[in-house]
Amino acid sequence: MSATMENRPKAAVKPFPKLKAYEKLAALAKNPFDLTKEGNLTPERLKKFTADACGYKLLYGTERIDENTMLALKELTEETHAIDQMEAMQNGEIVNFIEGFASENRPALHTALRDQFDKPNTAKAAKEAAATAKVELDKLKAFMDVLDKKDFSDLVVIGIGGSELGPKAHYEALMPYLKKGRKVYFVGNIDPDGLNSVLSQVDLKKCLGLIISKTGTTLETLVNEELLSEQFKKAGLKPQEHLITVTSKGSPLDDKKKYLEVFNLWDWVGGRYSTTSMVGGVLLAFAYGFETFMELLKGANAMDKVALNRDFNKNLPLLGAVLGIWNRNFLHYPLVAIIPYSYALARFPSHLQQLDMESNGKHIDKQGAFVNFETGPFIFGEPGTNAQHSFYQLLHQGTNICPLEMICYKLPQRKNDKSIDNTTSQEKLLSNLFAQSIALAMGQKSENPNKDFQGNRPNLILLGKQLTPFSLGALLAYYEHKVAFQGFIWHINSFDQEGVQLGKVLATKIIQRFAAKNSGKTGTAYPLGDAYIKFLDDL
Amino acid sequence: MSATMENRPKAAVKPFPKLKAYEKLAALAKNPFDLTKEGNLTPERLKKFTADACGYKLLYGTERIDENTMLALKELTEETHAIDQMEAMQNGEIVNFIEGFASENRPALHTALRDQFDKPNTAKAAKEAAATAKVELDKLKAFMDVLDKKDFSDLVVIGIGGSELGPKAHYEALMPYLKKGRKVYFVGNIDPDGLNSVLSQVDLKKCLGLIISKTGTTLETLVNEELLSEQFKKAGLKPQEHLITVTSKGSPLDDKKKYLEVFNLWDWVGGRYSTTSMVGGVLLAFAYGFETFMELLKGANAMDKVALNRDFNKNLPLLGAVLGIWNRNFLHYPLVAIIPYSYALARFPSHLQQLDMESNGKHIDKQGAFVNFETGPFIFGEPGTNAQHSFYQLLHQGTNICPLEMICYKLPQRKNDKSIDNTTSQEKLLSNLFAQSIALAMGQKSENPNKDFQGNRPNLILLGKQLTPFSLGALLAYYEHKVAFQGFIWHINSFDQEGVQLGKVLATKIIQRFAAKNSGKTGTAYPLGDAYIKFLDDL
Repeated sequence: MSATMENRPKAAVKPFPKLKAYEKLAALAKNPFDLTKEGNLTPERLKKFTADACGYKLLYGTERIDENTMLALKELTEETHAIDQMEAMQNGEIVNFIEGFASENRPALHTALRDQFDKPNTAKAAKEAAATAKVELDKLKAFMDVLDKKDFSDLVVIGIGGSELGPKAHYEALMPYLKKGRKVYFVGNIDPDGLNSVLSQVDLKKCLGLIISKTGTTLETLVNEELLSEQFKKAGLKPQEHLITVTSKGSPLDDKKKYLEVFNLWDWVGGRYSTTSMVGGVLLAFAYGFETFMELLKGANAMDKVALNRDFNKNLPLLGAVLGIWNRNFLHYPLVAIIPYSYALARFPSHLQQLDMESNGKHIDKQGAFVNFETGPFIFGEPGTNAQHSFYQLLHQGTNICPLEMICYKLPQRKNDKSIDNTTSQEKLLSNLFAQSIALAMGQKSENPNKDFQGNRPNLILLGKQLTPFSLGALLAYYEHKVAFQGFIWHINSFDQEGVQLGKVLATKIIQRFAAKNSGKTGTAYPLGDAYIKFLDDL
Repeated sequence: MSATMENRPKAAVKPFPKLKAYEKLAALAKNPFDLTKEGNLTPERLKKFTADACGYKLLYGTERIDENTMLALKELTEETHAIDQMEAMQNGEIVNFIEGFASENRPALHTALRDQFDKPNTAKAAKEAAATAKVELDKLKAFMDVLDKKDFSDLVVIGIGGSELGPKAHYEALMPYLKKGRKVYFVGNIDPDGLNSVLSQVDLKKCLGLIISKTGTTLETLVNEELLSEQFKKAGLKPQEHLITVTSKGSPLDDKKKYLEVFNLWDWVGGRYSTTSMVGGVLLAFAYGFETFMELLKGANAMDKVALNRDFNKNLPLLGAVLGIWNRNFLHYPLVAIIPYSYALARFPSHLQQLDMESNGKHIDKQGAFVNFETGPFIFGEPGTNAQHSFYQLLHQGTNICPLEMICYKLPQRKNDKSIDNTTSQEKLLSNLFAQSIALAMGQKSENPNKDFQGNRPNLILLGKQLTPFSLGALLAYYEHKVAFQGFIWHINSFDQEGVQLGKVLATKIIQRFAAKNSGKTGTAYPLGDAYIKFLDDL
């Protein structure tokens, strides 16, 4: 990868609030479309504000937008060269930088990981990256063939953040595809109860450990690796016959002598964008087979191409991005709820929470200037209908408004969906989704103030046919690109995470205070840390 | 229970923004304590702003408060008779009402469920309720003795909302106490993939089903019960030998002929306040034994008494409530992150999400007037340190501020915590917690804007010795009362949930449209619903 400062993509020259489209949108936001007004939310409107791609329909007639809003949002994407920036990203130009300051200064080429199918990207950097990724894919295929001849039933994944959340969400989403007798466990936290809980459930003889850390220096991961290694030894087993790693070339984990197999990833794959790399690949192929993982990549690749579509109304991630910006910067909602009406996607909101909040929770632009507008929202979510019986009370009648993004499929993943009173459970699930979309939007007037619903709660639906490896891959890429587009339009760097560093530095100082205390030494003074440690003595 | 309108508790007469303390707090909020200023966040300050009860320490020196703020917050509790209201609630007076409008109009007596120990409440209604609860506890004990002689290994819990979230969070929090060979599964969602996924894991012969629904009319629960019954029949088993219910007297599920056993609950126990009723009791006693469940009740009961403590500095739930109100109404933060630095509490934030958002996500006061101030915040959370590697980027450097409530314990639940480099994993976990508390509060100045942290991110820590059944019960009650106190101070009804009704009504209409379509009939027209159903045909 030899990208330089010169081939950085064209970026918005003006700060976000100085854009022409910003001014238009700010004016429109003074009087946003009223979903509660009689005759405003109609079947025609619902039909009008839809878009299709990769087997998904985006239904956004229940957002507070009209044709003029959509036109201005389209202009916003043009004025900020959003699709050019997406193209630059996918071509391997440097998009992860802060100009004039020390920064990671590199491409974000997660799209190359799955650029293994028809009509590949022909840009040099993208081609090289895809070829590098292909080497690991071939290695994975061969390794899975070897495993098929052995008797490993459990895989314990040790990794945290992007090495856990995306992989876990995707693992749990595909359960009906599970290979017989195989199971995957995840240990992220340094909390010893986490690993020990997993160890109480597995048979170490039949167990593999997968250690995932890009740098090979993640505190939680190294500690848990050491604890797991020790357990293998105690059981009379050799760690090097049970441990696999996924790491960068040259990291402490990149050692073929110490591990059964080593898979690589590269600095152009960010942790939260790494599910389609070997970070997700090894465990998903173990659980579901190599071909299922390839199907996931195929779906992601299909959506990558959708993100390059110059037709605004067909570019789903771009539409999702600007609808989010409308809610965030013009209607000023600080958060978004992601509600999959899908049991299988129960952990997906946690992945999106990292993807979105770590990417766009930024306070400076790409020139290092502090921004004077809102960037990434808070993201949270639980599956529907569960969420209806939990926090929807506040969504309907609370004093703050939270836009919703709901995901659902026409068909369940598994068979055995019985019809009761002439409807299947899946139909009842869909009915709830549709009903909430309408209820949140339209509200309800009532003489009884407790039965009064103000409505105008913006929401959209992403509707697919069935959750399969392909459609899951497409969904993953949809959100990756939605987030990236928002970063492009805001002109912030969605690919670094400097905000996690300070806590790490201070944690190390406090760990040293514990170590000093435990070893009877003095160590470097840290009175604030000591004050906290002192509280423990009183318990 | 014969409480009438007359014995309603003294309530705040003035609307919240008209209180004297409100005015003081609003003035103080113009210049809140600056945690980032050199010399402001000191060990002395940390030590000063602590409180102790039930084995927990509340550490709140990293909130943006000083002595004057705390004095004004104390006045707020006095002016709103917060503790009188708590006393009235625990005494069984009617607290669940909206004056002048149709409302549930009843007590909220979840504290009576666990008032089974020393110094019980002597108020008539509370005593009666505790005695009623005792009958079910005795029944539970006897039933568990019977089960111990049988060979049931799996319990499938079918319930949603409060019948799932609290029980699940508490079940997962106590895993090291699990009785050998027993396991509990939860099915809340109507999504057929949920139940079918569980069915693929259990041996029906050894399996019990626990159907939980207060009214016995919850759509999701009844459908899943029917699906489960059918599976028992298909396997040649009798549902009435495998199914247990928890429901109100007289509900469709209250039928001893149809079920192996029926446990009751009462209209003075709200769903989200029902973990210490038979809703949590049956499954927790099955998993952990009856005595462990009693320990949980004991811990909750201990915290119930703390909530009545007239000493402001010792009343932990009240302190938690007013610190939350300071952040919500005076510093205007719309949400709160709950971060347990505890693997075992991974699902606890989901329970608190319902508890808080469904209780206080309200837009009218107890006289039915629309409020002109902020009520309950959005609640979300994931365990730390995982959350650090996920969304802490935004918490540190995002453009909106989110206060944090962090929970941690001195000791892990399980043995086998190895020391590496002179510190155990638990010490490393605690170090991360303490470090984040400091980093969020103090921030960091830097020449590099990307390494600049603005700080002044309010946070507090609830620190205990170890997560046990007793301390878990105390934690549960801490949050129940924190939420109730906030409702008392805001003068809103924290015990109803009218906001979930509209969605239910519309869902029924759409289900009828599916049914009409499936049966070839016409049914009642609902064009908006039909528009959504039509989208499915295009997929």
